[in-house]
Amino acid sequence: MENKKYVYLFSEGNAKMRNLLGGKGANLAEMTRLGIPVPQGFTVSTDACLKYYKNGEKISEDIIEQINNSIEDLEKITGKHFGISDNPLLLSVRSGARVSMPGMMDTILNLGLNDVTVEKIAALTKNPRFAYDSYRRFIQMFSDVVMGIEKRKFEDLIDKAKGEKEVKYDIELDENDLKKLALGFKKLYEREIGKPFPDNPKEQLIESITAVFRSWNNPRAIVYRRLNDIPGEWGTAVNVQAMVFGNMGSNSGTGVAFTRNPATGENKIFGEYLINAQGEDVVAGIRTPEPIAKLKEDLPECYEEFINTAHRLENHYRDMQDMEFTIEQGKLYFLQTRNGKRTAQSALKIAVDMVNERAITKEQAILKVEPRQLETLLHPAFDAEDIKKAKVIAKGLPASPGAACGKVYFTAEEAKKHHEKGEKVILVRLETSPEDIEGMVAAEGILTIRGGMTSHAAVVARGMGTCCVAGCGSISIDEEKKVFKVQGKEYIEGDYISLDGSTGNVYGGAVKTTLPAVSGNFEIFMKWADGIKKLQVRTNADTPKDAKEAIKFGAKGIGLCRTEHMFFEVDRIPAVREMIVASTVEQRKRALDKLLPMQREDFIGIYEAMEGNPVTVRFLDPPLHEFLPSEEMDIENLSKEMNIDLQDLKATITSLHEFNPMMGHRGCRLSVSYPEIAEMQTRAVIEAALYVNKTKKLNIIPEIMIPLVGEIKELKFVKDIVVKTAEEIINKSGEELKYQVGTMIEIPRAALTADEIAKEAEFFSFGTNDLTQMTFGFSRDDAGKFLSYYYDNKIYEFDPFEKLDQIGVGKLIKMAVELGKKTRPDIHLGICGEHGGDPSSVEFCHNVGLDYVSCSPFRVPLARLAAAQAQVKNPR
Amino acid sequence: MENKKYVYLFSEGNAKMRNLLGGKGANLAEMTRLGIPVPQGFTVSTDACLKYYKNGEKISEDIIEQINNSIEDLEKITGKHFGISDNPLLLSVRSGARVSMPGMMDTILNLGLNDVTVEKIAALTKNPRFAYDSYRRFIQMFSDVVMGIEKRKFEDLIDKAKGEKEVKYDIELDENDLKKLALGFKKLYEREIGKPFPDNPKEQLIESITAVFRSWNNPRAIVYRRLNDIPGEWGTAVNVQAMVFGNMGSNSGTGVAFTRNPATGENKIFGEYLINAQGEDVVAGIRTPEPIAKLKEDLPECYEEFINTAHRLENHYRDMQDMEFTIEQGKLYFLQTRNGKRTAQSALKIAVDMVNERAITKEQAILKVEPRQLETLLHPAFDAEDIKKAKVIAKGLPASPGAACGKVYFTAEEAKKHHEKGEKVILVRLETSPEDIEGMVAAEGILTIRGGMTSHAAVVARGMGTCCVAGCGSISIDEEKKVFKVQGKEYIEGDYISLDGSTGNVYGGAVKTTLPAVSGNFEIFMKWADGIKKLQVRTNADTPKDAKEAIKFGAKGIGLCRTEHMFFEVDRIPAVREMIVASTVEQRKRALDKLLPMQREDFIGIYEAMEGNPVTVRFLDPPLHEFLPSEEMDIENLSKEMNIDLQDLKATITSLHEFNPMMGHRGCRLSVSYPEIAEMQTRAVIEAALYVNKTKKLNIIPEIMIPLVGEIKELKFVKDIVVKTAEEIINKSGEELKYQVGTMIEIPRAALTADEIAKEAEFFSFGTNDLTQMTFGFSRDDAGKFLSYYYDNKIYEFDPFEKLDQIGVGKLIKMAVELGKKTRPDIHLGICGEHGGDPSSVEFCHNVGLDYVSCSPFRVPLARLAAAQAQVKNPR
Repeated sequence: MENKKYVYLFSEGNAKMRNLLGGKGANLAEMTRLGIPVPQGFTVSTDACLKYYKNGEKISEDIIEQINNSIEDLEKITGKHFGISDNPLLLSVRSGARVSMPGMMDTILNLGLNDVTVEKIAALTKNPRFAYDSYRRFIQMFSDVVMGIEKRKFEDLIDKAKGEKEVKYDIELDENDLKKLALGFKKLYEREIGKPFPDNPKEQLIESITAVFRSWNNPRAIVYRRLNDIPGEWGTAVNVQAMVFGNMGSNSGTGVAFTRNPATGENKIFGEYLINAQGEDVVAGIRTPEPIAKLKEDLPECYEEFINTAHRLENHYRDMQDMEFTIEQGKLYFLQTRNGKRTAQSALKIAVDMVNERAITKEQAILKVEPRQLETLLHPAFDAEDIKKAKVIAKGLPASPGAACGKVYFTAEEAKKHHEKGEKVILVRLETSPEDIEGMVAAEGILTIRGGMTSHAAVVARGMGTCCVAGCGSISIDEEKKVFKVQGKEYIEGDYISLDGSTGNVYGGAVKTTLPAVSGNFEIFMKWADGIKKLQVRTNADTPKDAKEAIKFGAKGIGLCRTEHMFFEVDRIPAVREMIVASTVEQRKRALDKLLPMQREDFIGIYEAMEGNPVTVRFLDPPLHEFLPSEEMDIENLSKEMNIDLQDLKATITSLHEFNPMMGHRGCRLSVSYPEIAEMQTRAVIEAALYVNKTKKLNIIPEIMIPLVGEIKELKFVKDIVVKTAEEIINKSGEELKYQVGTMIEIPRAALTADEIAKEAEFFSFGTNDLTQMTFGFSRDDAGKFLSYYYDNKIYEFDPFEKLDQIGVGKLIKMAVELGKKTRPDIHLGICGEHGGDPSSVEFCHNVGLDYVSCSPFRVPLARLAAAQAQVKNPR
Repeated sequence: MENKKYVYLFSEGNAKMRNLLGGKGANLAEMTRLGIPVPQGFTVSTDACLKYYKNGEKISEDIIEQINNSIEDLEKITGKHFGISDNPLLLSVRSGARVSMPGMMDTILNLGLNDVTVEKIAALTKNPRFAYDSYRRFIQMFSDVVMGIEKRKFEDLIDKAKGEKEVKYDIELDENDLKKLALGFKKLYEREIGKPFPDNPKEQLIESITAVFRSWNNPRAIVYRRLNDIPGEWGTAVNVQAMVFGNMGSNSGTGVAFTRNPATGENKIFGEYLINAQGEDVVAGIRTPEPIAKLKEDLPECYEEFINTAHRLENHYRDMQDMEFTIEQGKLYFLQTRNGKRTAQSALKIAVDMVNERAITKEQAILKVEPRQLETLLHPAFDAEDIKKAKVIAKGLPASPGAACGKVYFTAEEAKKHHEKGEKVILVRLETSPEDIEGMVAAEGILTIRGGMTSHAAVVARGMGTCCVAGCGSISIDEEKKVFKVQGKEYIEGDYISLDGSTGNVYGGAVKTTLPAVSGNFEIFMKWADGIKKLQVRTNADTPKDAKEAIKFGAKGIGLCRTEHMFFEVDRIPAVREMIVASTVEQRKRALDKLLPMQREDFIGIYEAMEGNPVTVRFLDPPLHEFLPSEEMDIENLSKEMNIDLQDLKATITSLHEFNPMMGHRGCRLSVSYPEIAEMQTRAVIEAALYVNKTKKLNIIPEIMIPLVGEIKELKFVKDIVVKTAEEIINKSGEELKYQVGTMIEIPRAALTADEIAKEAEFFSFGTNDLTQMTFGFSRDDAGKFLSYYYDNKIYEFDPFEKLDQIGVGKLIKMAVELGKKTRPDIHLGICGEHGGDPSSVEFCHNVGLDYVSCSPFRVPLARLAAAQAQVKNPR
């Protein structure tokens, strides 16, 4: 038998023991320590939960013994007895993980009741109806939570009782009805389980604690954890607490309150309460709660104590508190306090106010706002009134947040045309492809029938910050006839619909949208963040429009400008295709000569938009077949357009087919086979920089980034082409121009040989999308098919494409950073995968010593804040 | 100016300076040191070559100065003068890399001749015809090798001269004709180059040395290096040597000889010579050389000196020597000695003989046979006489070595049927697919029209040791009509053809094949190897037949038994497909129940064949869509066969489609989604072992290998299923059975987290095929499209799928070995990728401390030898 302590009385803990006692338990202990009135109890630790799982989902004997000892202590503290007695101790059993997971796990109240104790409670409280109502609620909760008997079966018995009595509300059932109901519930239990309902309070307790441990791994908890980056190995603690009752007369009551307004941040206690009620009654919504201020009239002493304690708690925790309280016959108890959840606007205001009040430092303020929350401030939202009247006609995947309203168009061309006329448009497609880019740019929102969270539409929309609902399968579409149908109704070109990219809802008709007013607090707060952070934040932007947007959001340069996105544009795709089908170097060069002036114009626009901030241009990356059509009809059209033989064109397309295009002929491999592509791109980059530096008096230092490098000689080969071309142009121009050549680290071999690679690379940019694919050996496009099984079985708890895998991929990154710096101590290091916009990944980048992260424009503020938080947590 | 020495007189070097002086240079120095008569000279080092490339393909001034100084030294040694003089020094310039690359680089003879010196030589030798013939040869060689003027243009002038004189042979041209010709050559040179032919011997020399350096990177040298694993960074040395002439009368001559017979190994000097001749004359084939023994009659003193020196050289180098010599007016010179190339049979005999002669130790003997050579001993070859009469009708890729002859059949069924009737068959297919397996097993040889060295046919054939010619595009085939056509002739079912899998030749008609008699030396030699090596050698085998073959070749167990190959067999593919299209767990289990007895039988057969040696069974690995047809017609047939709706079947096939199947739903990901597959396979493995141990009194300890693991929890999930299933069966049987569960390390993340993985894995087997793909980020199936550009540009110098990339992939392997041992010091470590059969990769495995390599049966002897060599080179 080991001697480890698994059970802690509230009086034995404190707020710092959150990991062991869970958030709720640690705060109950802290309040106890502060002398704040708390119904006493104890916490079964998270370690006990882990042991429970290790032990084959069974609570071990030593822990049961510690629980029983704590019950004895609690009996002494409360003067009550857990079991048959004139003053029976009733308990609540609640989960409490390290971070709050509201509603995800189970709770059992009124534990300790049985046919005998219920009578004692009835006598003690002189309220038999209350006693029997509590009893039947307990049986019902226990049966549901602990034994998994369907709730509905109990509800049926209640309905039957009400039917027999011909009444409508539960409240109309009297003590006898409830007594009969409790009896009926017990019978139902015995029928379902094959054993009588447990009368022994200790048995009830152990079963309930077991049920809470078990609920840590119920499916909704697992999903919640995945969505909120909570590791499964944390486990939950269980809080066992003496019951207090707010429904023992007019000098009793219950309520919830915040020390500041969670919606606006206003510095004024905000909350509501009900006299003579239990928490459940608030939820049931039969009675309307009163604002907290009214308590001053009802129970002035309690009010004063509450207000004083609330202020004390806020001062103590130095954060806005969310509190639950109960008044039992004139005595105030705090059941819980925690840092309150709040809207983004509120979070900013509270953080700024508390600094101004000198309650916290700027560094502390920085930690009080969730980086992800900032996103909601940057996207349009529906008008709060208007949305209430709107009708949901379908629901898809919430692929890119925000709200959008506009007229339906079915092709990129139409969307673009009508956008140019000043209409607001929604692009509706079966699925989008790179050819739709211009229509997507023009649209307020994008709706696709097929495709998931990582489909083309979803990825591109998130990058642009455009609202998108994807994979809306309940809609049937006829793209040729330009009509879609849902719920029996047809929608044609020009009809209004509205999309909510944060929920996936599609509304029939127009719903007004508003851009949330970003208050001055946002700017003040972000300035603080910028002052603190060491990590620079750049953006991934491929067009002058994106670049400008990103500057507005505080980006200090472009970390990734993907040149292929330019290649897909309508005016250049013919030349791109001409290049691809070229059968000689000369033909290819002719096609590239057509692309050169367009590409140069792109870079001029981007440099100008970036106003002298650095711009990293990545050379052509995707396999060439992505630029050619795959449908028979499109191929035929193309062969006519290009005036080349259909069979020849088909043969070219066939020869470009790849079994695993992700690992195929792409990235710098294209420049190795067709050096003239790298030549043309270098020319465009350098000529544009010379032009802009001269005409705008800027000092652009272009950074040329070679993708998909796995071997130093490969990088050197392409770099030699770049340098030769660049030097020629610069020498001829007679101007001065600095430029850098670097590489993406996105192939494991590049990370493993980064000391070699750094001999040629002046900078590294970690391409964590590909690096994740290669390191895990799974394709992002295909992983959807099996990852759900991995989540269900808790093998992976988060999507490694959203949150960087710090163990495996992170190890490669750390290795590459160390090896790279060994060769070239001043090597410039960044990240340009989508992880650059994920807070925990940004923190990792800070910790391993990168110089910058690059993310999509709308994620820039988030990344700035995450970078500042990382510096506060781990100064460098 | 640096002071580094780049040029060495022969008298300054020795045999150990091979890396610096090249093989030829080091041996010329060594012979000089030993006092053996060598025409004196000097060697320009390999470092000079590297400097030449670093210096932009230009020989730097300091090296030119050293060369000039060495010329002065040489003038002193020879008493001749390099330039205008009565006794002019003529030189040869020859390449000489660290290892011999015969014919790959350039040679220039008779350097130093010009219009003046040619006359001096004519006078000195009293042989003007000889002088002018040498002169015109020099001009021709210099023009071709140094300046790149086409040889043909010179040949045309010679033809013209013979035409004018109405003679047939060069020898019929007299001194005047040759003088005129030399003049014509010089004019031709001037016309082509725009400058006169260089008269200055020093200019001739520097240009020639430059040409030799340049020839290090000519295309044929690059290809040769890739085929022979010679790194480009070695560079070549250049040997500059005084000319001696074997064509100065009847007391002169030239020849080549070996100290033992290079074909048979017989311990007797073997060689031939010509009196009054130069090396070229032997090649020209106008005169027939005499056997070396005849020299005893012609020039007895020279003969005696030659024989004595030859023996001395063999004793000195302790290896069979390949020597070139020239006799100039009664004086014997050795122009070269080197370890002679030899056939596999000869190599074995020489190694065994020399140990018996106590000339070398067994360890030294082990190093004298190239592991790759052993392969030729194990495959059938064509009858030497018969093949001379055969007609090549087409040439494909030499996909799997050996010779085969048989009747043509166009389907696997027909091939199998006729094989069972006792016919020898050749399977001819457009390309093969897994369904063809049984036909491939039945065939003597396989011929495909499409597909490369890594196509299905090629990979499977190599695995089975069956001869295969792949990608024979000049043949047109009609599989339905069962006919193929080539060179205007049609071949139908039952026609004989013959294949040479080592050259890619296809012969029309039957050619007799013979299995080379493996002499007793093979067994003696391999026993020595086994006694020395520390690394065990296992085999990759999926059938009892393969397993038996491998045992014969000395395998000590199976390192990789791929269960999916069993799934493809005709009698089980219906059940496999039933499993795949199952829409419920029950349906899937029903299908798996049908597979269980078959799979169990497979394992019983394999265990019995392995006679108690360990067997590692890998669980199902490929994506499920590989088991379903892709052609419209096959799908229709299948829907009828299985009696399921065509649309449903198509929907299943569509839903299984993957963008990057290599990184898709495969490996242990299948067991995570469908645990019942792992259950069935465990059952088959364990039940078979129990049965065999009981009935055959063996002690099989099955090793279950979980593929494609990237995360410890994933392995644990599958392992838990395996252990639970296995324990149930073992407990029920009442028998004892040990088994192991381990994993493949083939995903970079597994290597990076091997310390974690080792907590669950009892063994690691490195799956270097996939590990190479993921680490390089390229797909083996697609890399062919761009790797040729990489070879051309010397970015990669070998195929990382054939020879392990020790820098990148190797780093991951080393890391995984260290991490794995840290967690589990006795972890068992092996490799089962195709690299297990590559000598340099085997050496790497020895050096990093693996316990075994596993390779295809026919490669087992090779791996055993490579393992022994590794131990000799780096004892552990």
